[in-house]
Amino acid sequence: MTRRQLLRMIGVTAGSAMMYQAMSSLGFAAESRFKKPIGLQGAPKGASVLVLGAGIAGMVAAYELRAAGYKVQVLEYNARAGGRNWSIHSGDVYTELGGFTQHCQFDPGLYINPGPWRIPYHHQGILHYCTRLGVPLESFVQVNNNAYVHSSTAFGGKPQRYRHVRADYAGHVAELLAKATQNHKLDERVTKEDQEKLLMSLRMTGALDKHYAYVGGRDSSERRGYDIDPGGGLDQKAVPSKPIAFGDLLDSGLWSMISAGDDYDMQTTLFQPVGGMGQIGKAFARELGSLIRYHAKVIDIHQDESGVTVTYEDTLKPGSKFSARADWCVNTIPLSVLSQIPMNVGAAMADAIAAVPYAAAVKVGLQFKRRFWEQDEQIYGGITYTDLPITNISYPSTGYFNPGKGVLLGAYIWGMNATEFTAMSPQERVKAAVGYGSQIHPQYATEFDNGVAVAWHRSPFTLGCFGLWSEALRQKHYDDLCQIDGRIVLAGEHASYIPAWQEGAVTSSLNAIGRLHQKALATGAHA
Amino acid sequence: MTRRQLLRMIGVTAGSAMMYQAMSSLGFAAESRFKKPIGLQGAPKGASVLVLGAGIAGMVAAYELRAAGYKVQVLEYNARAGGRNWSIHSGDVYTELGGFTQHCQFDPGLYINPGPWRIPYHHQGILHYCTRLGVPLESFVQVNNNAYVHSSTAFGGKPQRYRHVRADYAGHVAELLAKATQNHKLDERVTKEDQEKLLMSLRMTGALDKHYAYVGGRDSSERRGYDIDPGGGLDQKAVPSKPIAFGDLLDSGLWSMISAGDDYDMQTTLFQPVGGMGQIGKAFARELGSLIRYHAKVIDIHQDESGVTVTYEDTLKPGSKFSARADWCVNTIPLSVLSQIPMNVGAAMADAIAAVPYAAAVKVGLQFKRRFWEQDEQIYGGITYTDLPITNISYPSTGYFNPGKGVLLGAYIWGMNATEFTAMSPQERVKAAVGYGSQIHPQYATEFDNGVAVAWHRSPFTLGCFGLWSEALRQKHYDDLCQIDGRIVLAGEHASYIPAWQEGAVTSSLNAIGRLHQKALATGAHA
Repeated sequence: MTRRQLLRMIGVTAGSAMMYQAMSSLGFAAESRFKKPIGLQGAPKGASVLVLGAGIAGMVAAYELRAAGYKVQVLEYNARAGGRNWSIHSGDVYTELGGFTQHCQFDPGLYINPGPWRIPYHHQGILHYCTRLGVPLESFVQVNNNAYVHSSTAFGGKPQRYRHVRADYAGHVAELLAKATQNHKLDERVTKEDQEKLLMSLRMTGALDKHYAYVGGRDSSERRGYDIDPGGGLDQKAVPSKPIAFGDLLDSGLWSMISAGDDYDMQTTLFQPVGGMGQIGKAFARELGSLIRYHAKVIDIHQDESGVTVTYEDTLKPGSKFSARADWCVNTIPLSVLSQIPMNVGAAMADAIAAVPYAAAVKVGLQFKRRFWEQDEQIYGGITYTDLPITNISYPSTGYFNPGKGVLLGAYIWGMNATEFTAMSPQERVKAAVGYGSQIHPQYATEFDNGVAVAWHRSPFTLGCFGLWSEALRQKHYDDLCQIDGRIVLAGEHASYIPAWQEGAVTSSLNAIGRLHQKALATGAHA
Repeated sequence: MTRRQLLRMIGVTAGSAMMYQAMSSLGFAAESRFKKPIGLQGAPKGASVLVLGAGIAGMVAAYELRAAGYKVQVLEYNARAGGRNWSIHSGDVYTELGGFTQHCQFDPGLYINPGPWRIPYHHQGILHYCTRLGVPLESFVQVNNNAYVHSSTAFGGKPQRYRHVRADYAGHVAELLAKATQNHKLDERVTKEDQEKLLMSLRMTGALDKHYAYVGGRDSSERRGYDIDPGGGLDQKAVPSKPIAFGDLLDSGLWSMISAGDDYDMQTTLFQPVGGMGQIGKAFARELGSLIRYHAKVIDIHQDESGVTVTYEDTLKPGSKFSARADWCVNTIPLSVLSQIPMNVGAAMADAIAAVPYAAAVKVGLQFKRRFWEQDEQIYGGITYTDLPITNISYPSTGYFNPGKGVLLGAYIWGMNATEFTAMSPQERVKAAVGYGSQIHPQYATEFDNGVAVAWHRSPFTLGCFGLWSEALRQKHYDDLCQIDGRIVLAGEHASYIPAWQEGAVTSSLNAIGRLHQKALATGAHA
């Protein structure tokens, strides 16, 4: 009997509450890896943990281990907590490798998230800490039907409304399949009875007319929008729009840009913290207070039979040397940085640390004198996708209809283009983003105000954006990376199956400290 | 030359700014009927207008006519402004026809919108007034991939996650069309070259594997979600999910519930005013102040050569009779009510007023002791669709993760079911909504707190939900309804091509007062 058959059987013989229980116990309802709350208890008397890095993974570890009764200290390289959880606001200063310093000139209240910028609803770990720390969340708009998809080589380089491409692709596909059904070309694969249901469903999902055709008119305009919307009173009838021919659509390649919102990680409902992603890091920092030592650049990690000693420089006093010691160490330093720090772990973990490359990524935040994308083009939040190197333009999912200035994400670049942008100065990156973007929004030319650009490979605290696991690398090194080596355990997005996401950092951290706590209990009281 | 060819030609020979201009002038970019702002000016000296009804249409008229220099007075039946623009909060009292009085017991800050509850981004008229009156807007979540679609006769009556049905339907359709393409069954309809692009696009949009099959595994789970999500550290690999068989999906009829978010009126980005839809009505009322006379029940409308006299009862003094007079009258009283008030207009308009039936609709707001839909089921905003009479359950798009009580829309009922629910007492409606809803959320049984129910046919100020135009009715009566009759013009959603929407009320009102102003100017100064 299949699981589904079993469920169906339960369903017809029992009430829905029982069915619900059964679904859950069979794993039919989706299950997050996060079981809240971890609630560790009973640290060995006097036991201590040193946490390296006050990013999300490190602060989750510090927060939960302190609650369990450990003496906790956190060493953080930056002058702030959060790590890649970071929003750049008015007045912020950022110096990247190579010495370029940027002073953010945004208007008060405006910001850009150089790192993570959205939280899927099923990332229950990071969402749990938002709730627990009192970080208010608002809806992040991923898909905006009135934003654009853009190819520099299709439709004369003119951006197309997302809703046009999405509706037309779906309509043409539905029509093709409907015609094939009607012409008995699916007889081998679909039963006669199902063919009728298939036709009904295609008509509805594809907005076909009664002849199963996807053509200009009311049916299709109720999806792709009208050329002129209906109104009230006299002479206010709608003017329907005309679909793009399927051949043109297939040629354009724009169909490759309409599925992002269908992906599990990008599906509704998505969230962002009110006031910027960095609010989460700030909330953790408030909670942990003096447990975090800032400006602490780790230069050596040495474990022995009874504990771990970490040597660090106070970056405010170049050349200084301090040391911290604890029974255990949760090490969340990105592998790109960690691979350059002496640390006596076994060969398996050392090889794993050295093996994982880091992804290049660049984000550019642009401030404009007005929210022209809203005022001129009725684009409120969401993302425009383009084949230009800037990849996307993302409009703010907050402050809608604000009459003042506005900040958008003018570029989010990966791969080869990111390497090229990383080689530029921040000012050149901003200029390039403005240049490319003006092919989509001509208003850039007159409305641009100022910008900031973060190239993650030049970020001194990460030297890259996130751990770039291939399947083969993961097979070879992942488990070795995550094992506890003596008194040291690693955590962070790089030690997770959800690379680049904060949820990877949270679940990695919880899994690591859960195991570390067990080991500490087994090892017994502080020596 | 087609419009598209022309655009393409312009696109290759000119810059994008020029292309953008061309697009707009050719009507290629969607155009709202609303041209902001209307900016009427120069009312004839001393000219006056009487506005009947302080709903959205009436208040737009009053606001703009006052700005143009008219002496304006508004008569409103209710003790509040807004009409169907209305949110019910803690402590509100509502008495419906038949005498049932409800006292809202919601917790402070919680509310239900018995009338309109969402604003599409292209409803630029109502959005303009929100901005102008300082009503802050937030994102309304229509589609929630983690909400349910539910048929009482499919899958043993168990609700299915929206993302499962949506992804599986798309995947199976893509697979069918891909196989038909590969087996040369589309050769007549799709060129060889396009077939290759079609296959690529189907693989991407349908999440097919490399054999163009939609099967359980990573590809499909990246759309429909995993049975167990990936996590961090050791033993945190994802467990993929398995698609529903296409036959089962077609049988279930659930495909009929996955297109709502594709409709032009329901597409992202949708809005709601912070604090409830009623904030718009309140903002207008604040702006208009003493221009609105409340508790004024219109009982007679009489026009003569020089003006319009309206007789009304002060409902606080039953049997009382007052009259108001002005040069012109903008009459926004719903046709269901207006058809029962004596008014000397021509036969064409009178026939039109009498001809339009009003749609029945019922909404039920339910307060629960906790937001179990978030806490137990990770449903944040959005809508569950069901074939039960309640039709949908809509979860609040605000206050996410609030640990206190929560209010959801427990029913939004049309048609025959609405008639049945209208016949019940409010308490019975609430009870029925709780009963039906518990088939989807077993938690209803223990978590239900209290509720309110509005049956629009029992609303004394509208006697129905909205004007139910058929194509034939519109052909016959619509223009007659909208013409200025002597000194009277009608406005409201019923005098628009966007029935039931606030945008219909706004654009109807603007169109009506624009014409009325022209007539007033032509008629000359006040006699």
